[in-house]
Amino acid sequence: MKLWEKGYQLDQKIEAFTIGKDRIFDLQIAKYDVIASMAHAQMLSEIGMISVEENAALHQELTLVLHSIEQDQFEIEEQVEDVHSQIEKILIEKIGDTGKKIHLGRSRNDQVLVALRLYFREELGRLIHKIKKVAEVLLNAAERHKEVLIPGYTHMQVGMVSSCGLWFSGFAEALIDDAEYISKVSGLINRNPLGTAAGYGSSMPLDREMTTEELGFEDLCINPINAQIGRGKTELLVAHVLSGTGLTINKLAMDICLFSNENYGILSLPKEFTTGSSIMPHKQNPDVFELIRARSNLLITLPNQVSSVISNLTSGYHRDFQIQKEIIFPALNQITILLDLIEWCIPQLLIHDTQVFSDKYKYLWSVELVNQYVLEGMTFREAYKKVGNDIETDQYDPPKEIKHTHIGSIGNLGINLMRERLKAL
Amino acid sequence: MKLWEKGYQLDQKIEAFTIGKDRIFDLQIAKYDVIASMAHAQMLSEIGMISVEENAALHQELTLVLHSIEQDQFEIEEQVEDVHSQIEKILIEKIGDTGKKIHLGRSRNDQVLVALRLYFREELGRLIHKIKKVAEVLLNAAERHKEVLIPGYTHMQVGMVSSCGLWFSGFAEALIDDAEYISKVSGLINRNPLGTAAGYGSSMPLDREMTTEELGFEDLCINPINAQIGRGKTELLVAHVLSGTGLTINKLAMDICLFSNENYGILSLPKEFTTGSSIMPHKQNPDVFELIRARSNLLITLPNQVSSVISNLTSGYHRDFQIQKEIIFPALNQITILLDLIEWCIPQLLIHDTQVFSDKYKYLWSVELVNQYVLEGMTFREAYKKVGNDIETDQYDPPKEIKHTHIGSIGNLGINLMRERLKAL
Amino acid sequence: MKLWEKGYQLDQKIEAFTIGKDRIFDLQIAKYDVIASMAHAQMLSEIGMISVEENAALHQELTLVLHSIEQDQFEIEEQVEDVHSQIEKILIEKIGDTGKKIHLGRSRNDQVLVALRLYFREELGRLIHKIKKVAEVLLNAAERHKEVLIPGYTHMQVGMVSSCGLWFSGFAEALIDDAEYISKVSGLINRNPLGTAAGYGSSMPLDREMTTEELGFEDLCINPINAQIGRGKTELLVAHVLSGTGLTINKLAMDICLFSNENYGILSLPKEFTTGSSIMPHKQNPDVFELIRARSNLLITLPNQVSSVISNLTSGYHRDFQIQKEIIFPALNQITILLDLIEWCIPQLLIHDTQVFSDKYKYLWSVELVNQYVLEGMTFREAYKKVGNDIETDQYDPPKEIKHTHIGSIGNLGINLMRERLKAL
Amino acid sequence: MKLWEKGYQLDQKIEAFTIGKDRIFDLQIAKYDVIASMAHAQMLSEIGMISVEENAALHQELTLVLHSIEQDQFEIEEQVEDVHSQIEKILIEKIGDTGKKIHLGRSRNDQVLVALRLYFREELGRLIHKIKKVAEVLLNAAERHKEVLIPGYTHMQVGMVSSCGLWFSGFAEALIDDAEYISKVSGLINRNPLGTAAGYGSSMPLDREMTTEELGFEDLCINPINAQIGRGKTELLVAHVLSGTGLTINKLAMDICLFSNENYGILSLPKEFTTGSSIMPHKQNPDVFELIRARSNLLITLPNQVSSVISNLTSGYHRDFQIQKEIIFPALNQITILLDLIEWCIPQLLIHDTQVFSDKYKYLWSVELVNQYVLEGMTFREAYKKVGNDIETDQYDPPKEIKHTHIGSIGNLGINLMRERLKAL
Repeated sequence: MKLWEKGYQLDQKIEAFTIGKDRIFDLQIAKYDVIASMAHAQMLSEIGMISVEENAALHQELTLVLHSIEQDQFEIEEQVEDVHSQIEKILIEKIGDTGKKIHLGRSRNDQVLVALRLYFREELGRLIHKIKKVAEVLLNAAERHKEVLIPGYTHMQVGMVSSCGLWFSGFAEALIDDAEYISKVSGLINRNPLGTAAGYGSSMPLDREMTTEELGFEDLCINPINAQIGRGKTELLVAHVLSGTGLTINKLAMDICLFSNENYGILSLPKEFTTGSSIMPHKQNPDVFELIRARSNLLITLPNQVSSVISNLTSGYHRDFQIQKEIIFPALNQITILLDLIEWCIPQLLIHDTQVFSDKYKYLWSVELVNQYVLEGMTFREAYKKVGNDIETDQYDPPKEIKHTHIGSIGNLGINLMRERLKAL
Repeated sequence: MKLWEKGYQLDQKIEAFTIGKDRIFDLQIAKYDVIASMAHAQMLSEIGMISVEENAALHQELTLVLHSIEQDQFEIEEQVEDVHSQIEKILIEKIGDTGKKIHLGRSRNDQVLVALRLYFREELGRLIHKIKKVAEVLLNAAERHKEVLIPGYTHMQVGMVSSCGLWFSGFAEALIDDAEYISKVSGLINRNPLGTAAGYGSSMPLDREMTTEELGFEDLCINPINAQIGRGKTELLVAHVLSGTGLTINKLAMDICLFSNENYGILSLPKEFTTGSSIMPHKQNPDVFELIRARSNLLITLPNQVSSVISNLTSGYHRDFQIQKEIIFPALNQITILLDLIEWCIPQLLIHDTQVFSDKYKYLWSVELVNQYVLEGMTFREAYKKVGNDIETDQYDPPKEIKHTHIGSIGNLGINLMRERLKAL
Repeated sequence: MKLWEKGYQLDQKIEAFTIGKDRIFDLQIAKYDVIASMAHAQMLSEIGMISVEENAALHQELTLVLHSIEQDQFEIEEQVEDVHSQIEKILIEKIGDTGKKIHLGRSRNDQVLVALRLYFREELGRLIHKIKKVAEVLLNAAERHKEVLIPGYTHMQVGMVSSCGLWFSGFAEALIDDAEYISKVSGLINRNPLGTAAGYGSSMPLDREMTTEELGFEDLCINPINAQIGRGKTELLVAHVLSGTGLTINKLAMDICLFSNENYGILSLPKEFTTGSSIMPHKQNPDVFELIRARSNLLITLPNQVSSVISNLTSGYHRDFQIQKEIIFPALNQITILLDLIEWCIPQLLIHDTQVFSDKYKYLWSVELVNQYVLEGMTFREAYKKVGNDIETDQYDPPKEIKHTHIGSIGNLGINLMRERLKAL
Repeated sequence: MKLWEKGYQLDQKIEAFTIGKDRIFDLQIAKYDVIASMAHAQMLSEIGMISVEENAALHQELTLVLHSIEQDQFEIEEQVEDVHSQIEKILIEKIGDTGKKIHLGRSRNDQVLVALRLYFREELGRLIHKIKKVAEVLLNAAERHKEVLIPGYTHMQVGMVSSCGLWFSGFAEALIDDAEYISKVSGLINRNPLGTAAGYGSSMPLDREMTTEELGFEDLCINPINAQIGRGKTELLVAHVLSGTGLTINKLAMDICLFSNENYGILSLPKEFTTGSSIMPHKQNPDVFELIRARSNLLITLPNQVSSVISNLTSGYHRDFQIQKEIIFPALNQITILLDLIEWCIPQLLIHDTQVFSDKYKYLWSVELVNQYVLEGMTFREAYKKVGNDIETDQYDPPKEIKHTHIGSIGNLGINLMRERLKAL
């Protein structure tokens, strides 16, 4: 069944291809399509295009559809094109002519736009919630292991002394930053495209401010052409924030892989979290973080996929936009899986003593010696040169004490500040 | 001259390669390096690591450097590695031992981080300003041509009636959206990394809140490891917003190229804006918008370039980060050039009569006939079917009037609302 | 069941995540894993590591597995990690100790490498075959419509006269080029990694030349570290050729979308191939080619996804590589679907008369007038200027005849040459 | 001066933008434009469109231009649009009317196509030559250090024993593979587009086979529309091979960075090749390989930039294509610089003793113990289990001998085979 039924049969190959996986992905936005339809009906009633009774009937039937969705009983039938058609079909079957009035003053184009924005708004909210939980786990780990000193590397070379507390809380703050980014982008998305119809508005006297308020949008997408520009750009914004968080995940995963290398020896996974080799009997590999690393890279490339589909296209709707559900919807699921795993693994990491006071890591302390000379009256640059010379001439004997006090230093991690930011999210 | 001079000569090939174009790009952040150095010196003085007199001397010399930068007289000498080294060199030459104290408690790593954030903050502010001007030009064009009706296409097929007013103001709103995105991202970037040293903090009792306030940052990058994660992620955020605006520019350019095609005939460029062919004497090509389209695509791929350099790297500084200046700095310049050209061209576009009332475009009005039937009492879906049938049976005779009233419709463009948003930026 | 079973239970979350969709994707390479196992067993027997009888037993059981794969009866059990483990499990269940010998001198790392290369070799062969069929369809269309003149556009502006023959055969040649690219890349992939074990070779006296010959490889991957570098690079090469063909498909789809626009009017799809609008009753949209265009863009971005996963990783195996099955396997299927649709649609395109001789398209002939002046004795550049002047002064009256004779021109399409290339593929 | 001069002044902003950096990039293809012009003139003379004398005059003047290019004295004047215009301008200034005849039967569109293909052919040849030299350096290093055993890692975890010989020669073979890829792609590019004019051929009786032979092309680009499809696709092919080699370079650089980490301790750079820190006096960082790694990533993203510019564009010339010179030309230069540096650094790497026989690396030998048990009669899988058990119960005591004999193993690197492949390139 098609809304645009014209009395001829669509070629079957073409039909199968053009519908694609839409029936599957549309289930994820069904709820939002219903909610937006309720608001649309309410508005049609207020502007006098349908009667109060018709609105009540539509509301009642849409409520039933909503329940069926919430109970996983809603489905898009084989011969039905998409979720929008399915719902109109149900309405017509149930309440006849009244159902035939629901599409007045709108198009599937603004229908899907509004459903997508409601969907992204909710999904991003959920993602922020998830990130907050992972950040808390990291902050807890930072507190638990804050006394454990580890080598800090720059250029992948031994640099200055660091600590597990510094490392765990660094990633906590990074995730809090990511969540703030998501929150800001969610605000940009939270605007109402309903009433822009097929991308050129309607000659019906729609009250777009009413639906804006009804659906809890912060503001209106004023212009219909811009509403269509938003198809693709909205997905690009979502891709951007997924890519941002993906980058944090990627770095954390790479760190864990390298830190659990035997030479680094900073941490390891419990053996129940590792996998073996078909040929080397001794192996306990951190596959889980390798795959988190790999999958985060796919999140990082999302903006590129989204933009490849839409760039060089004119304004106005193109069916190409449909593909973006396939790009973004699974990614929203994927990132949750990755964050889940991190939340699960972090508390179970085994932290080792890397013996930062041993001779192997003696250069970790070179800046401490510089600072000591400075406190003794030398200028910084002279002290720097003197330590360089001490090293050259084998007279290097640095102090190995931690006396860091500034905010964000090993001795003052600033975890409370981070917890405040977390709370404010 | 190198800050880390160790008494041996760096291999010349290696030196030339590693410095690369840093001396050129560093000129763009010289100003911010000086400003941050002033704040750092002030702070060193307040925590008693240098005297009030030393701070005054440093401030005075740094002010002179700032003037030389503003007057384009500052340069990084051939034998000097980067801007940070150059400035320290000048200070030492001018005020001796006092100059040798400026680097206490910091590293080039946090020095460049803070300079970059100040630079991006200012550049993004400038970009918002530029976008506002282009949006105004588009809004003016929308008002000037608001009565000109044009075909609106969906699927690149004749769809519904549109107007020049709708089209121009659509892109204006898109750019306002972009500017809001930039503004939000700029807020995320506006945080102080100074005091995180080489990525693991310092054992000096730095007062990081003081420099945060001094430099007008909204808040602190608390954690040094996260400050280093920010190298790359900051550039990624900037790339994201450039990519977003790039997409708007891309679509506008593609529209202009196609709308100026003879078949579309919606608009054209004055001949002084077009270029000819070496073989076809009749040609007046819109090369300018083809190149804007092409260059916007390069902006759109920026996030991919930025992330390619940093993904799969561990936490901590890597020299790889240096390359991102090359990716982002020219792009900030490029997008300004594209916006400049759009600002210049839009008012000069020649708008033609596309004769939307002619038979050629009769289907533009099909929804108007549907709506008329609805107003006469039919349900929407029946009216839709009837018009389909009218078309099939050659009885199609739609009303060709514009009576659009809702916000964002041809008859009510909502330009005032957009101007308000512009003002609020 | 795991080959590396160590007597403890893998954490279930970790297990589910690390296995991922491997059981599904592995079915596609099961056949090749069996074939390579046969060659490996044969070789083990020849170097005396297993007996002739053991080899015969292995061969027999592997043959049975092969049959079960070919009859779609092979499956990877829930508790089994991957295809390699499943097959070893079957062998051990069926022939006991002999089965326990099959893994000597190899690792899953080279096992999957060899299976992938055999799989890609066959898939690329199939793809070439498919492209040849589409190219033939295009050549047939070129011949059928070779007399139909159409406007040729440059800069999306009316340029010179073209023809349907020129257009169809242009894309035919493009696809033949693509097939040649695939063929060359297939040759590069056709090398034997078996015997490189986990990426550092084996101390068993393997005869790698024997398996190379047995499996029909052109040559050997000599070095084990390079064999592992090949994991990822092989996929990158496959992504490259898919991207190349994707670009041709993309351009063809964009052309069809624009050429079927009412203003261009060059061709249209039969209505059974188009889809309608929920709001505009007149619509017959070329969704199929819009979606082909969109999906080709995802093919075009494949190299980026592949490289994002592997770049900045050290040599040696990483579990990240597993993800590439998910990137590449579905793409090989997807491109076949797109080519299928093109093969199906091209013969059914309705070709219209664009009236290239009408005044609307008079400038299509400007070069013909230039050439006429040249034949009358003028130099080219003077003739060019004269025609420009003729146009300016409204004296432009070009000859509208086709007298093109050179290879590849409207009058001499060179289809036979293309057919020869097709045959040589 | 413009070939298409029409008596009005192009807007200066537009002119500056559309010409962009073309005058700079065009210098790189000037030589090939001259060579192709000679072939074109020769052909025009053979088909009787110009006289033998005119051809001689053109040949003579073009030869002078060629000399001036070779002596770096050729330049594109400020007021001239591009190299093609400059050369026609010179010819007209020098030999008057004869110069005005050179453009007959061609367009700048096929002129630049042919020049680019000649340019890429030569550049790719040079690149292969360069790669061969680097591969030789790596093979020499492999031979020199073939006895040095090092740990081989999988999953970044201690795996099996490897050697410097294996590692160096692995990258040598990888580069040889890359060179073969380049060679194959160069063959695909080596086809003649001259005579396709503006993308729709010419009504002049051009002899395209003659210019094909004259210019040493392997074959003809038959179809003009396909010749234009080749603009962009040719660059994509070049980007593909640069990306492929870029990936090899990337991995080598990452290996060197990690191998020179103090914990890995496999190798280090001489101090003259390292750079220091502004704050840590002990630092000797491998910046050169970090920057090689970063820059190789930009090479790896090239295909994405190229395709972003051309996808979703119709067939026929678009000015967007011009941008690709900027993407590809500098990359061809960049990759040479990276290869140069590798060639320079490899022989100077300091190789250390990683003490693979020490207890720290005892698990490197676990497969050797498995193999020993197999040689003593156990099945592989049982031997594997027994070693696992030995490790668990602290009874693990593996043989630490190298007895690898198969081609490509530590004991039989197959360097001669690689040298043969090198020679065959």
